[in-house]
Amino acid sequence: MGEFELLAKLRERLPAAGPRIALGSGDDAAVTVPGGATATSVDAIVEGVHFRRDEAALATIGRKALATALSDLAAMGAEAGEAYVVLGAPSDLDEDGFHALLDGILERARATGTAIAGGDLTRAPVLTLAVTVVGHAPAPSAFVSRGDAVAGDLLVLTGEIGGAAAGRLLLDDPSLAAAVSEDTAARLRARQLDPSPRLRSGRALARAGARAMIDLSDGLVGDAAHLAGASGVGLEIDAGSLPLAKGLVEVAAAAGRDPLQLAVAGGEDYELLAALPADALGEASLRMGEAAEATLTPIGRVAAGAGVEVRLPGGGRLEAVGYDHFAEP
Amino acid sequence: MGEFELLAKLRERLPAAGPRIALGSGDDAAVTVPGGATATSVDAIVEGVHFRRDEAALATIGRKALATALSDLAAMGAEAGEAYVVLGAPSDLDEDGFHALLDGILERARATGTAIAGGDLTRAPVLTLAVTVVGHAPAPSAFVSRGDAVAGDLLVLTGEIGGAAAGRLLLDDPSLAAAVSEDTAARLRARQLDPSPRLRSGRALARAGARAMIDLSDGLVGDAAHLAGASGVGLEIDAGSLPLAKGLVEVAAAAGRDPLQLAVAGGEDYELLAALPADALGEASLRMGEAAEATLTPIGRVAAGAGVEVRLPGGGRLEAVGYDHFAEP
Repeated sequence: MGEFELLAKLRERLPAAGPRIALGSGDDAAVTVPGGATATSVDAIVEGVHFRRDEAALATIGRKALATALSDLAAMGAEAGEAYVVLGAPSDLDEDGFHALLDGILERARATGTAIAGGDLTRAPVLTLAVTVVGHAPAPSAFVSRGDAVAGDLLVLTGEIGGAAAGRLLLDDPSLAAAVSEDTAARLRARQLDPSPRLRSGRALARAGARAMIDLSDGLVGDAAHLAGASGVGLEIDAGSLPLAKGLVEVAAAAGRDPLQLAVAGGEDYELLAALPADALGEASLRMGEAAEATLTPIGRVAAGAGVEVRLPGGGRLEAVGYDHFAEP
Repeated sequence: MGEFELLAKLRERLPAAGPRIALGSGDDAAVTVPGGATATSVDAIVEGVHFRRDEAALATIGRKALATALSDLAAMGAEAGEAYVVLGAPSDLDEDGFHALLDGILERARATGTAIAGGDLTRAPVLTLAVTVVGHAPAPSAFVSRGDAVAGDLLVLTGEIGGAAAGRLLLDDPSLAAAVSEDTAARLRARQLDPSPRLRSGRALARAGARAMIDLSDGLVGDAAHLAGASGVGLEIDAGSLPLAKGLVEVAAAAGRDPLQLAVAGGEDYELLAALPADALGEASLRMGEAAEATLTPIGRVAAGAGVEVRLPGGGRLEAVGYDHFAEP
């Protein structure tokens, strides 16, 4: 089957145009009518760097490709709008494989209200998905950047962290799964392979007045440092308050690793870290409850100065060390 | 040097925000304020599939990546706005290499009024560039799709065709260059390695009332078939009227190839094919003259029916055969 036939078949599966789409996939470009301001982000995942086909089903890989891109929109407090997918396909990807990838992409798109408005298909030596996502808001000021945290703000975190790192350990050494229940092991592996973008949480925090926000792809300390640098502030994180993923402590112990290190440096949790005016915590908690997507935990504060300090419960500071991500070539 | 340091260095080279950009590269997403309707397209080029590093300088590869993406906006009659670049970098690409790629991207961006508003950097087994481009118009109706050609329209073509195919032959067999002047050979190779998006031409044709338009990436007959299919019409092309690239006939003869086949099936010329109301040719020619980018040639007409027919000067039809593009793996 030629590229055009395959493209036509895949295109048939895309839903009819979304609310802002005047002309969908299949022309030289998709035409949209944005109603205010847009936030646009691109994110690529590459086989052997970000995923392995022997670890995750193709549908899961498709879901992750869209999810990690949408996570950046969540961190802006944006409403998800359109996505454009570049698929670099190795020669061993057959027609069923294309459809399985699209299954995953469309599933995540439906769940988040995202319209797949276009794409490109090319040969590539390894499976590569580059996803562009466009989010919307009535005006630029409704988006939350990384750069406006001020001293005195509270630092809050959605959900739990360290789960993706524990999942990575479980995938690399299945014998570690004996340390936790089957259910917990499955949930930790899913944190690594099948992350969820916190879109509803991001909008809830934006509406509650979050001044700065970032999603955790590189790890709490690394991403916090990006936020601190962009805002020109220092961040103090109370290690004792961190919401550790269920099972992290047990898996880390079985692997001989420090669970706190995995939590602060493990990355790929795709939770949101936000700086919030101290008096907005009540409203933020309320709106997070309405969003019904993840918990909200105060984990520290914004201070004058620079950099990120992780304070240990017994006094002293944690020195976050680099965590070896999977298979960097 | 780590990914973040390199990203920061590359980001420093991006110009300050463009006219529609409220928040540029470096945050979770770029924020723009589109003024009406947007046209968005994604296009990827992959080493070994679309280019070879031993044939083209890195700056040229960067220019081509942006140019081929922008060509889709040209085919919509859009004004170029923003671009987002995913760079998949193999381990042998050093810091100078990154800067050279960015040189090319920025050069093409400046020449077309495009703002590089964001991007992503990842490791990849071969050099991969996936470019998303966003173009603008006051309203969706100002864009030209592929689907509105009607019987009786004129078919017009910008510039010359077959040049990229001749360039491909010259690159594959340098001895063929003896058939033409050095200058002509260089120009043909540049048609293959360093195409120009016809953005001013696309806008000129849109303003002159073009009803349907497409850019020639796959080849005249193939792309004409896409336009015919989308519009539900047939297209008649007069082979004798085709504007063949200077030197094509000589290079084809030296290679034992049919120049007309290379012109209609060679692809990668990135010229524009448009369907124009017959009484709009005068205005289109005038506006193309003002755009001062490429010639405009009537090459046939839109008819009832379906498919694409290439009529030979002596009577009879040309059967367009597939042209072997470079290095499909």
